[in-house]
Amino acid sequence: MFARLGHAIHLGANNIRNRALMPEISLYGNRFSGHSYKVRLYLTLTKTPHVYKTVDLLQSRADRQVDFRERARFGEVPLLIINGQPYAQSNAILLRLQKSLGITCAEQEQQNIVEWLMWEQGRLGSSLPNLRFERLFNSQTKQDVQAWLEERLRNDLDVLNAHLSGTSGFVVGMGLTIADCSLAGYLYWLSDAGLDIDNWPKVQAWLQRISELDGWQHPDKLMA
Amino acid sequence: MFARLGHAIHLGANNIRNRALMPEISLYGNRFSGHSYKVRLYLTLTKTPHVYKTVDLLQSRADRQVDFRERARFGEVPLLIINGQPYAQSNAILLRLQKSLGITCAEQEQQNIVEWLMWEQGRLGSSLPNLRFERLFNSQTKQDVQAWLEERLRNDLDVLNAHLSGTSGFVVGMGLTIADCSLAGYLYWLSDAGLDIDNWPKVQAWLQRISELDGWQHPDKLMA
Repeated sequence: MFARLGHAIHLGANNIRNRALMPEISLYGNRFSGHSYKVRLYLTLTKTPHVYKTVDLLQSRADRQVDFRERARFGEVPLLIINGQPYAQSNAILLRLQKSLGITCAEQEQQNIVEWLMWEQGRLGSSLPNLRFERLFNSQTKQDVQAWLEERLRNDLDVLNAHLSGTSGFVVGMGLTIADCSLAGYLYWLSDAGLDIDNWPKVQAWLQRISELDGWQHPDKLMA
Repeated sequence: MFARLGHAIHLGANNIRNRALMPEISLYGNRFSGHSYKVRLYLTLTKTPHVYKTVDLLQSRADRQVDFRERARFGEVPLLIINGQPYAQSNAILLRLQKSLGITCAEQEQQNIVEWLMWEQGRLGSSLPNLRFERLFNSQTKQDVQAWLEERLRNDLDVLNAHLSGTSGFVVGMGLTIADCSLAGYLYWLSDAGLDIDNWPKVQAWLQRISELDGWQHPDKLMA
């Protein structure tokens, strides 16, 4: 499997034979943002050269650097710049990046990738960051809100665990895709949300599998 | 603008000149599901022939019709079947449908559509259905949870209202796209969530604009 995977994840940079054709890429992100980590993780695992710029989310929006403010349509990180063109929304960025790197897969596999990106955006990529934020940073959050978010997060983890029980070891197809980077984005921080990954062994094994890929780094390190 | 719009929304069915090439389409949905409405609204406004099948969400998953259970990867509505192939996740379905109908737009516009679909999935398409569900159907919901969801929904409506202040009247480009159908999905039911659309006049005008398109129906009627 790892031979196949190695093949799959190196396609990006290798596909662009002429380095002069390699797009110029900058990523604006933040060390607390798993949505930013999704994108940098994919850039890293595909060995795609890029510049990483941090945005201080504790600053008011008006005080953030001008080059960021002028190009961030939603005022949020991550923001990716490819050859001067800005792209917003983490999962939309991943789709664009896959395309820019010339990484293709079969039509039905690509549709499944889009389905999982949408699921992530509405479920796990909402319940987990929200619960983590409320537990880590917001001492005012009511217990009922935390309980409501935790129930949703547990359900989302059950869905992902069940799905991973029936796959080759990655979310779609035989190797790592943008769907893995998206879904894994916040999961290395699951304990910040107060849950223990041991309860979802298929998810745990899959996170471990990703972490053994060449170049992988924990978000605390990669986004510093 | 309406001439352009009329042109844009009719592209779908007209593009497929040979009716024999028209894909066979079935939609599984439910009358309470705005995510299902998004898809049927787009099918209706593009005058795309399809069969609509209702799924009783009050039945346990095991009791729902076999043809639905066997093909719904996430066990959820909407589920779209195109020429026998099942598609899940409302916004992934909309992207697939746009492609199947041969409706294209400029690359950057398409990217903006994907960005708004992702924003919908994580924000408005999460805060609104959740608050509506808790207020309409769940008498046990704690006040703090409702307040937390309402604050998020108000913020999402502010973002959409601000965006619509600077557009041609639709979310992306000069006419109706899948982004409009997606974002409007639950908004005709905003009062079920306890909020008044009068507070977001640009959103209100845009919903009115969509409702004046040929064939439009309110979700209570279209999804019955």
